[in-house]
Amino acid sequence: MARNDSRSRARPRRDGTALRQVPWSALRNPYQAIKVLSEEQVEAIHDASMRILEEIGMDFLHPEALEILARKGAEVEPGSERVRLDRGLVQEALSHAPAQFTLHGRNPARNLTVGANFINFATVASAVNVFDLERGRRDGNFRDYCDLVRLAQSFNIVHLFGGYPVEPIDLPTETRHLDATLAVITLSDKVFHGYSLGRARILDSIEMARIARGISRAELERQPSLFSVVNTLSPLRLDGPMIEGVIEMARCNQPVVVTPFTLSGAMSPVTLAGALAQQNAEALAGITLAQLVNPGAPVVYGGFTSNVDMKSGAPAFGTPEYMRAALAGGQLARRYGLPYRSSNANAANVVDAQAAYESEMSLWGAVMGHANIVVHGAGWLEGGLCASFEKMIVDAELLQMMAELFRPIEVDEETLGLEAIREVEPGGHFFGAAHTLERYETAFYTPMLSDWRNYGTWEGDGARNATERAHRLYRKVLAEFEPPPLDPAIREELEDFVARRTREGGVRAA
Amino acid sequence: MARNDSRSRARPRRDGTALRQVPWSALRNPYQAIKVLSEEQVEAIHDASMRILEEIGMDFLHPEALEILARKGAEVEPGSERVRLDRGLVQEALSHAPAQFTLHGRNPARNLTVGANFINFATVASAVNVFDLERGRRDGNFRDYCDLVRLAQSFNIVHLFGGYPVEPIDLPTETRHLDATLAVITLSDKVFHGYSLGRARILDSIEMARIARGISRAELERQPSLFSVVNTLSPLRLDGPMIEGVIEMARCNQPVVVTPFTLSGAMSPVTLAGALAQQNAEALAGITLAQLVNPGAPVVYGGFTSNVDMKSGAPAFGTPEYMRAALAGGQLARRYGLPYRSSNANAANVVDAQAAYESEMSLWGAVMGHANIVVHGAGWLEGGLCASFEKMIVDAELLQMMAELFRPIEVDEETLGLEAIREVEPGGHFFGAAHTLERYETAFYTPMLSDWRNYGTWEGDGARNATERAHRLYRKVLAEFEPPPLDPAIREELEDFVARRTREGGVRAA
Repeated sequence: MARNDSRSRARPRRDGTALRQVPWSALRNPYQAIKVLSEEQVEAIHDASMRILEEIGMDFLHPEALEILARKGAEVEPGSERVRLDRGLVQEALSHAPAQFTLHGRNPARNLTVGANFINFATVASAVNVFDLERGRRDGNFRDYCDLVRLAQSFNIVHLFGGYPVEPIDLPTETRHLDATLAVITLSDKVFHGYSLGRARILDSIEMARIARGISRAELERQPSLFSVVNTLSPLRLDGPMIEGVIEMARCNQPVVVTPFTLSGAMSPVTLAGALAQQNAEALAGITLAQLVNPGAPVVYGGFTSNVDMKSGAPAFGTPEYMRAALAGGQLARRYGLPYRSSNANAANVVDAQAAYESEMSLWGAVMGHANIVVHGAGWLEGGLCASFEKMIVDAELLQMMAELFRPIEVDEETLGLEAIREVEPGGHFFGAAHTLERYETAFYTPMLSDWRNYGTWEGDGARNATERAHRLYRKVLAEFEPPPLDPAIREELEDFVARRTREGGVRAA
Repeated sequence: MARNDSRSRARPRRDGTALRQVPWSALRNPYQAIKVLSEEQVEAIHDASMRILEEIGMDFLHPEALEILARKGAEVEPGSERVRLDRGLVQEALSHAPAQFTLHGRNPARNLTVGANFINFATVASAVNVFDLERGRRDGNFRDYCDLVRLAQSFNIVHLFGGYPVEPIDLPTETRHLDATLAVITLSDKVFHGYSLGRARILDSIEMARIARGISRAELERQPSLFSVVNTLSPLRLDGPMIEGVIEMARCNQPVVVTPFTLSGAMSPVTLAGALAQQNAEALAGITLAQLVNPGAPVVYGGFTSNVDMKSGAPAFGTPEYMRAALAGGQLARRYGLPYRSSNANAANVVDAQAAYESEMSLWGAVMGHANIVVHGAGWLEGGLCASFEKMIVDAELLQMMAELFRPIEVDEETLGLEAIREVEPGGHFFGAAHTLERYETAFYTPMLSDWRNYGTWEGDGARNATERAHRLYRKVLAEFEPPPLDPAIREELEDFVARRTREGGVRAA
């Protein structure tokens, strides 16, 4: 295991209190993935997805993509955006995709490995509402955006940003990406995400990632320094702005995560096998485009298949179907030797037992599906429509518990403790044993949020449930936040870039 | 898979509403168990546990046990209750224990298979307090006991009773077991548990199980018809009343689940390896006693190792340590070819996010540790000190989701849905497709508790969190409860037995 095995230590705080948390580390999942599909079933889904691409085809809503695909041998239907991809072409393209790559943070200590059994937890992304217990539910805004960035920066278990934790819709759309990216770079030193919302925006994000790292364009092209999630418009469409993201990211060797939004019963067949076949077709089509642009560009296979409530059409997450799809998605990604992305999703409207159990199910699907990036790992609520401060704390606890679960059990003469058992004798007690005293401070995971006091003590101290405790904890963490160091020259260069691009009008609506 | 593959159907109710739930079925876990220990580590823990039994020994606080053990070759320390067990003796005893057995309910449709990859979910057991949102927290009592029995009987996903869901402490101790057992037999037709609290009580329970099934003593001895959980007094003690339970249950071929209460850092070493070695020693010692009494008697290896909060001494559950111990316990049980028991435990004081996430962690430990019986599967709160009506509903939902997770993904030409994808075309929608319409009613798991409506609709309908919804659901289920049929002759025989034993004074304190 690459992770630092030293136990969590209380981090001294200005007010003398401490946020106890696990240390920052590269997490590796030592357990074998759960297989929900037999090898034959994986092949049957693969074959069906190839038939989808060969016989039905996919719409690429951008002339440049059509041109690239036609040039590489795909069959573009004349006068249409429909493209049929031969399995040989797909296979050849996939053969160049790396199985593993490094994502570089502006702080090298924040570099992440994506691939193998590494698992990286990302924040909630792209919520349009934000919630906390004190102020209630409100539209996404820049103040809450910055606070969620601060919160995510504060937790070692949150490895990267999955996108904007909440959409700062009070910022003008032309320059929103500039201000939001400047904020995530100055308030955090972790890897961030650029939105593939058209060529200009993604190029701005790439350039800001380059400046933040203080490297040349050539160095950037050797060192992936941001990532972008590209969603297909299921069924079987990739829209123009996303295509521009794929092309520009691939061109400079930055990773795209191609994630079909295949809600079974709505945007894909009502059967899991069918939804997975379509997911596979769409993910591989997007990845093929990236490889045709730049063979060897880093890519990630994204899985997001879930089901809808067939009465209301509402999307559901953390369901048994969602979880089996998450596990199956991992099997498919591994068939192609591609890193895998999954999520920590739920459809609850409030941070309650449902939010927790649906998140746990999603998370177990991600972990046992061997996801390498878990987007929406911390803070997601309402099927992604809302970012919650309290949920980010609850999730940080869930993620920490997963990280601790990856720790091996040490079995040797010392840990088997025969001498301690001999000393204590039948009917005795281990609290005072030397074996215990030598180890008790660091023997067990110390939770941030879980309250194990007995009922009377807990009740006498305010009877706060986990969500109420999470509220107090998030406010305390924010109150104690200090931004990570940033070279003043780099800050100035970033600010100058944002000022210039703002003067130019940012990105105008087409 | 043995389980009935027909989908959950709405069960008609008198008021025209319906409780949608999964059908009663024998659940099998199709996934490979998670291994947290290497084969070498399993052997090292085994060896350490044998050294504990050989070198340190265990106290058996009952002369009959000492006599049996001595007769079979164990070394009983003169003038003491300390017994040293040679590994050859343990090995020989274990070689008779069955890998699988059937537990018979008074209704044959409720029979359960214990062993292989079968998983059976039991209720919370032995809580001393009870909680619901309306009436708050109160002492265990017979009225709530009966309501919890009714609730557990109502859910197909609850396979058996793990013990008294709550202790009816308003009933006199002399006759409590008689009234409680009569109630569980008349209000439910599922397998129940008899407490090993001395010879007289367990014999009463065994006799009532025999009467309930309308079988002879000889038939009972061929057909396990109740079970009993026996906890060791860790470290390394088995008390007198429990020993009488082991002896009497084994004598008539009824299963005992030997579960050491090895809280790491308090009743066992602070190291997981040491706690597991001690758990293994204690579980195998109890199982050895049962096999010496009656070679081939059904037994179950119980694992309950968790950690304590080293500051307060409070027990913790659903922790990363708990879960790794649950997974390791399964590996140990399988080493001896024994069925395995684990739990769905948490240390929350209220049915909140913590209760849900700790329960999920425990449950995943049980499921991926391949537990055959999951005691405390539904309704446990406060580290077992409290049974909660709302938690029983939340847990029933969690258990149902696990059951659905075990369903295989069907992959064939029909489910791959190529024709549907062809018909819908890129950019289309699957809601109206024939492929969808033919399947939508039964395609996905229908939750009992999860609310997937959008925020506005949910808020407009009262903004109830999962616990509040669970409260309404449990009251509805209770209001609609109808006891299962019971042959009037059997009922009369049971009532006569209870009346006679009550006249005799029940079980008087020693």
